[in-house]
Amino acid sequence: MGLSERQKMAAGEWYCCFDAELDALRVLAREAVHQHNTMPPGQRGGIGPALSMLFAGVADRVFIEAPFHCAYGMNISLGPRVYLNAGCTILDTAPVRIGEGSMLGPGVHIYCAEHHKDPTQRRTGLEIARPVEIGRDVWIGGGAIILGGVTIGDGAIVGAGAVVTRNVDAGTTVIGNPARALAAR
Amino acid sequence: MGLSERQKMAAGEWYCCFDAELDALRVLAREAVHQHNTMPPGQRGGIGPALSMLFAGVADRVFIEAPFHCAYGMNISLGPRVYLNAGCTILDTAPVRIGEGSMLGPGVHIYCAEHHKDPTQRRTGLEIARPVEIGRDVWIGGGAIILGGVTIGDGAIVGAGAVVTRNVDAGTTVIGNPARALAAR
Amino acid sequence: MGLSERQKMAAGEWYCCFDAELDALRVLAREAVHQHNTMPPGQRGGIGPALSMLFAGVADRVFIEAPFHCAYGMNISLGPRVYLNAGCTILDTAPVRIGEGSMLGPGVHIYCAEHHKDPTQRRTGLEIARPVEIGRDVWIGGGAIILGGVTIGDGAIVGAGAVVTRNVDAGTTVIGNPARALAAR
Repeated sequence: MGLSERQKMAAGEWYCCFDAELDALRVLAREAVHQHNTMPPGQRGGIGPALSMLFAGVADRVFIEAPFHCAYGMNISLGPRVYLNAGCTILDTAPVRIGEGSMLGPGVHIYCAEHHKDPTQRRTGLEIARPVEIGRDVWIGGGAIILGGVTIGDGAIVGAGAVVTRNVDAGTTVIGNPARALAAR
Repeated sequence: MGLSERQKMAAGEWYCCFDAELDALRVLAREAVHQHNTMPPGQRGGIGPALSMLFAGVADRVFIEAPFHCAYGMNISLGPRVYLNAGCTILDTAPVRIGEGSMLGPGVHIYCAEHHKDPTQRRTGLEIARPVEIGRDVWIGGGAIILGGVTIGDGAIVGAGAVVTRNVDAGTTVIGNPARALAAR
Repeated sequence: MGLSERQKMAAGEWYCCFDAELDALRVLAREAVHQHNTMPPGQRGGIGPALSMLFAGVADRVFIEAPFHCAYGMNISLGPRVYLNAGCTILDTAPVRIGEGSMLGPGVHIYCAEHHKDPTQRRTGLEIARPVEIGRDVWIGGGAIILGGVTIGDGAIVGAGAVVTRNVDAGTTVIGNPARALAAR
């Protein structure tokens, strides 16, 4: 028997997102996100129970401002003291790991999901998923977008509104759309 | 008797947005959006009753993630299987038509409304509205912005975070701010 | 005795954001924002009681669409007829003043807060705050980002999705990422 769509997604192969098992997982995520975003902030604390249970891993002292949005949640792992400001959105069709002490500004979006570039394939629901790895002590400015397959090294800085399509070396700063290293501009 | 502000808006002429009739329409949209965004996702399904009734047209199997925002709603027509991810925003002062199977990533914004460029005119509430037409099987990446007057052809791809100020031909890919065709870069 | 972190923040000096007094102020802002965003729009009117009380100053006929987000609120002053469309976000670690009749499109973000560029300093919570001053009759297009220290002159226009890192002269138009004056492109 072949792989399920979920297994293909996890294996980094093309899969079809119109699938009952994936649908059911997205329903769980939607409920958890709704709970996080509507809970009074005083009750929610740094991260409420809904997202804590949904995510793959949450270390100590993580803080996720509302609203937050994710596609599945089950692929998100957050290190100690990770901070996500309001409006962050993670399409975690593949693993998204954010290292200790890293901070995401408001409205940072991370997209692991990529649709097929051929419209006749795309309409059948074909997608592929690539992981995003963010190191320790990274600062991602508000409104930045990080695409699937990108690794951002420890201590790097991503400028506000940057669109990051390629890896960012540790300790470097990138800005712009598409993002380029600051010195190279 | 002259045209009402609403009639001028529909005719693509300069109109004043400080107007009781337009205000009342915006109140209806605000209520519908609030209902859509606060309804538990299990009850809402693909598109809840509030937006279904507000929009000009909604075909089968449309899905609009919460939160969503629009200015009027009455000018929005969505073809079959159109998917809007979380945080999409449509300022539909003119018709916005999205064709069958097209997908908008999270945080895609469409702005038909344009204020007057002269500040002394702008302060009186003068605006003009230009339609947006999105074809079939279009993929608009997350965080992209589409300005009024733009037509996007069937099967086109708009890169994440692109700011689209001009028409996009069928089957082409545009990226950047302002957006340019990929081959032309 | 030295300055408190709040006093250092107000003085434009480096301060530590991991601080009980600043935490308590952020808790107040979070509650007010939650109230504003969950209140039925018919009850909220142009600006609900929660943000009116939180902000430093709110003139007549201000309108703030939901959702809205701010870090403290206590540093925000809005002139008469200021309009903020849905999804605006203001990280007001320093004063943010918006002049009479200015309009912010949906999803405009203003960031006064800057973390330390050195990751070993950044991890200790070191931040610095720079004010943002927006004149009268300014039009800021949707999805634009304004960084700390920026002044935008009367009647200026900021294009949709622009990332504004430098001052904008009165009456001029800037677009792009980073934003440049339209004539200079």
